[in-house]
Amino acid sequence: MELNGVEIEDTFAEAFPIKVARVLITAATERWAEVAATEATGFATSVIGCPAEAGIDCVIPYDKTPDGRPGVAIIICHFKKDGIKAQLIERLGECVLTAPTTAMFNGLDAEDKVPVKLHFFGDGFEHELEVGGRKVWAIPMMEGEFICEEEYGVKTGVAGGNLFILARNQMSALAAAENAVTAIRQVEGTITPFPGGIVASGSKPGSNKYKFMHASTNEKFCPTLRDRVEGSEIPEGVNAVYEIVINGVSEEAVKEAMRAGIEAAVKIPEVVKITAGNFGGKLGKYQLRLKDVLGL
Amino acid sequence: MELNGVEIEDTFAEAFPIKVARVLITAATERWAEVAATEATGFATSVIGCPAEAGIDCVIPYDKTPDGRPGVAIIICHFKKDGIKAQLIERLGECVLTAPTTAMFNGLDAEDKVPVKLHFFGDGFEHELEVGGRKVWAIPMMEGEFICEEEYGVKTGVAGGNLFILARNQMSALAAAENAVTAIRQVEGTITPFPGGIVASGSKPGSNKYKFMHASTNEKFCPTLRDRVEGSEIPEGVNAVYEIVINGVSEEAVKEAMRAGIEAAVKIPEVVKITAGNFGGKLGKYQLRLKDVLGL
Amino acid sequence: MELNGVEIEDTFAEAFPIKVARVLITAATERWAEVAATEATGFATSVIGCPAEAGIDCVIPYDKTPDGRPGVAIIICHFKKDGIKAQLIERLGECVLTAPTTAMFNGLDAEDKVPVKLHFFGDGFEHELEVGGRKVWAIPMMEGEFICEEEYGVKTGVAGGNLFILARNQMSALAAAENAVTAIRQVEGTITPFPGGIVASGSKPGSNKYKFMHASTNEKFCPTLRDRVEGSEIPEGVNAVYEIVINGVSEEAVKEAMRAGIEAAVKIPEVVKITAGNFGGKLGKYQLRLKDVLGL
Amino acid sequence: MELNGVEIEDTFAEAFPIKVARVLITAATERWAEVAATEATGFATSVIGCPAEAGIDCVIPYDKTPDGRPGVAIIICHFKKDGIKAQLIERLGECVLTAPTTAMFNGLDAEDKVPVKLHFFGDGFEHELEVGGRKVWAIPMMEGEFICEEEYGVKTGVAGGNLFILARNQMSALAAAENAVTAIRQVEGTITPFPGGIVASGSKPGSNKYKFMHASTNEKFCPTLRDRVEGSEIPEGVNAVYEIVINGVSEEAVKEAMRAGIEAAVKIPEVVKITAGNFGGKLGKYQLRLKDVLGL
Repeated sequence: MELNGVEIEDTFAEAFPIKVARVLITAATERWAEVAATEATGFATSVIGCPAEAGIDCVIPYDKTPDGRPGVAIIICHFKKDGIKAQLIERLGECVLTAPTTAMFNGLDAEDKVPVKLHFFGDGFEHELEVGGRKVWAIPMMEGEFICEEEYGVKTGVAGGNLFILARNQMSALAAAENAVTAIRQVEGTITPFPGGIVASGSKPGSNKYKFMHASTNEKFCPTLRDRVEGSEIPEGVNAVYEIVINGVSEEAVKEAMRAGIEAAVKIPEVVKITAGNFGGKLGKYQLRLKDVLGL
Repeated sequence: MELNGVEIEDTFAEAFPIKVARVLITAATERWAEVAATEATGFATSVIGCPAEAGIDCVIPYDKTPDGRPGVAIIICHFKKDGIKAQLIERLGECVLTAPTTAMFNGLDAEDKVPVKLHFFGDGFEHELEVGGRKVWAIPMMEGEFICEEEYGVKTGVAGGNLFILARNQMSALAAAENAVTAIRQVEGTITPFPGGIVASGSKPGSNKYKFMHASTNEKFCPTLRDRVEGSEIPEGVNAVYEIVINGVSEEAVKEAMRAGIEAAVKIPEVVKITAGNFGGKLGKYQLRLKDVLGL
Repeated sequence: MELNGVEIEDTFAEAFPIKVARVLITAATERWAEVAATEATGFATSVIGCPAEAGIDCVIPYDKTPDGRPGVAIIICHFKKDGIKAQLIERLGECVLTAPTTAMFNGLDAEDKVPVKLHFFGDGFEHELEVGGRKVWAIPMMEGEFICEEEYGVKTGVAGGNLFILARNQMSALAAAENAVTAIRQVEGTITPFPGGIVASGSKPGSNKYKFMHASTNEKFCPTLRDRVEGSEIPEGVNAVYEIVINGVSEEAVKEAMRAGIEAAVKIPEVVKITAGNFGGKLGKYQLRLKDVLGL
Repeated sequence: MELNGVEIEDTFAEAFPIKVARVLITAATERWAEVAATEATGFATSVIGCPAEAGIDCVIPYDKTPDGRPGVAIIICHFKKDGIKAQLIERLGECVLTAPTTAMFNGLDAEDKVPVKLHFFGDGFEHELEVGGRKVWAIPMMEGEFICEEEYGVKTGVAGGNLFILARNQMSALAAAENAVTAIRQVEGTITPFPGGIVASGSKPGSNKYKFMHASTNEKFCPTLRDRVEGSEIPEGVNAVYEIVINGVSEEAVKEAMRAGIEAAVKIPEVVKITAGNFGGKLGKYQLRLKDVLGL
């Protein structure tokens, strides 16, 4: 298969169920909403070594937010509902409640909800009111009052959607990955949790040499090892590969994000191949096939 | 005392010893170094609810880095050396090793060092070389090779340096706080770990009403409660307060950062008072007195 | 009239016909499209002292551009068609053709067109091809080839749509103005040509004291002169005013932008009044009444 | 010659005398200073098609500015002193006086000065005062008062310093160019006037085919024409070239900027050669030899 002259491998991304919450952060200006959103979703690339997977979903314009101020939606993911709750309390309490001019609201329509009782911070001075038809707390603080909803929808979403970009050189691969992330930012309900949305270091489960490692470099995807390992997946002439990992609120959203990412990536010259990562279908519930995703 | 017509209270910031590490992240361009630095220092405003306190120290130009590429220095703080080590492994392994085009180097001259053995990720394909006179690992990965030092200096620094900005209205307080943070960014060896460097929500230890809370709003510093609580610290006409919390590699660095922050903040109209937070001198080892800091 | 508790004066913005062109700039990544767009629309706040009025209209995602790359649309305005042509040739030739990785396309569906024959720069090495169903030139240059359309639609649009934000203090007025500009950025077909979209200095035609001046400060809108001039338009308690000037491809687009700007501005605390600027209806063809714009 | 494994051609950049002014713009925050500086230096890549050459020199921290606020220095260049004066009046009057929260001061120590009498805008309401030991005007306007000096130093500087970056592919050439520009930003007294500091389209004087053209593509520097033109300067394997043009307040400053730019550019993989542009030494007063610049 080909798209824009770039080979598309007939394979699939193997993805997993994960618990997701979505929080809408508003602020005096869009910039301050983004500051809080960035802090709250930092240190959250992979649950292998981070306490959560999280990222910015998209900008929400002033006329789509409960308080009429500009906003940014974030998504926080954890394999367990308890983990989601703990992460919401810590990340929202430490990184949004503390941030200048912010307010926060539930951003996910879901039956299941977890309480995030930040109002106790008010030490009895907090009071309830209604903003945009929602019951919220107003907590007195140094800058004025912090407005927040108490209950946040949680549902089972999808983690580990992905695509791999193979290019002749590193800077072309990077520009393609950057474009893929920009395109995915438009797909509501999805995040790319790695730094700048991009993974530079593909891994395999475990390690052949160091038995205490849970994960190690995927040598078959290392261009510098192409001639040293058997079964290298690196085609001749490819010198750099980036992966985009995508989590989202639903299988549809993640597939749509994969499509957007691939379509944007193949426009950069010197990109030669797009593929996806899987474990042979043994581990994950979802098989997101590139052919289907792209309608090829 | 006064500075630029703004009242400076004759008080002190009470600060504490903390373990600090400093890491120099380089990348293909300054922008990508900042992307990795931001991810690695996210979710790190306060050790009360975050796994560490961390932030960006400053930009390091290409001619001051071991590999001649543009860089960004970050500082990571934890009360225990073990905690520093764990946080370095997780934050550098998940947020810098995975980031596009980055390399990393020790950024703190200290006798005490902790090992961050990311080279095991290479699964035996890693090799040693020298970059800028330093022994580093080169780890094959998808984008090429990741270069990193193994040992990172750790020393006892200072946490909890601070200043409070009191202004007639929220937007003026915020502009003053933004300027303070910009000024502090120039002081090497210091960070302002809160979102955008700014704390919107002052807290007191414990809670009067909710006994299970470790911290709650400091009602004496809440403008909206000025007429409802006894002993309010909010002068008449003040409607917003922001705090800047500063951690650093030394008492001198933190004092210098406080000076810079205050000098920058008092230039904004409608700022009426600067003060600092302490616990009466009972808890912290350091008393950073505004009078000394400013040479008044 | 009131909106969100803010007084809306029952008046109108007086606006004028102007010639407009709209150019779609694409690039390897959105960031480079923005770099070119910013350079091409600089020094273009007001035709009183600048060679044109120009600004960024909006970001165009990769899947809405002729070449499938991320883009930014700009609008260039001049009172004469000849002026538009000259400005297009100079601004596109010097600021887009020279910019890294860019291409450019007509962004305005209009019967009337002006030629921008940059292909002569190719010195005979240029060639024609088709991109996204459009006939374009490919001009060999140092970075590779520059792709551009030759004909750009020109139509009569509207200049001088406006709104005034009056607030109790400067920083609140500024945050409101910033939000207004962010909101207007979403309204396709409009620009806010002043720096950051904001005018800090209202003017009146001519000058009472200096007869050689074509324009001078509008003393009736100067908060510091409130008690010194007769007929001041500054209400008690107002200490800062910002104006947003809006140009657009049609009266409808400009009205929609005014609506968005006002709705976003009134959400900031300490904003007390919104009004608009006119010349009593004597000069401009269009009277954009706030009442109609807001549906009040 | 070689630097970091990259070939350095033994040639020189041919540069010209030009009149320069340097203006220090301060604002409430660094961001707003940059907004005004960007608008004031737009549409100013080359005097061939723009009314001036201009750009941002560097950020000036709060403690180095006359009013103690954060600032940005810009440089404006024109071949004639009259042209400098006209450009200062228009660019400062339309793009700085109108910008939110800005003030402006002379940023060049020079005996020769031009007056920029924006105070007439005050229509008699302006008044004089002293800021940071400088006599300035305060002009009442909508946001409050605009502070500006009246006289701006003008001296003969240098235009057309340059370096060419040749790389195997476009994205690598672009990253190298971006790094060169970042490095040059640190060299006080210099600007890179093209979009993002980078020139994608090298030109030669005149045109072989179109006699009415003053400049046209330099076919000898076009990678796509390598096999079609005689005397191509493009080495085998090179597919993209970017030029950095540098103007500055002195020959020394421009040479220092060339050095910084080259040192930063050669760190990017796939860059294979650095050269410079000249007219055989026939046209320009200055010959900035790469060998001297780099001390090789």
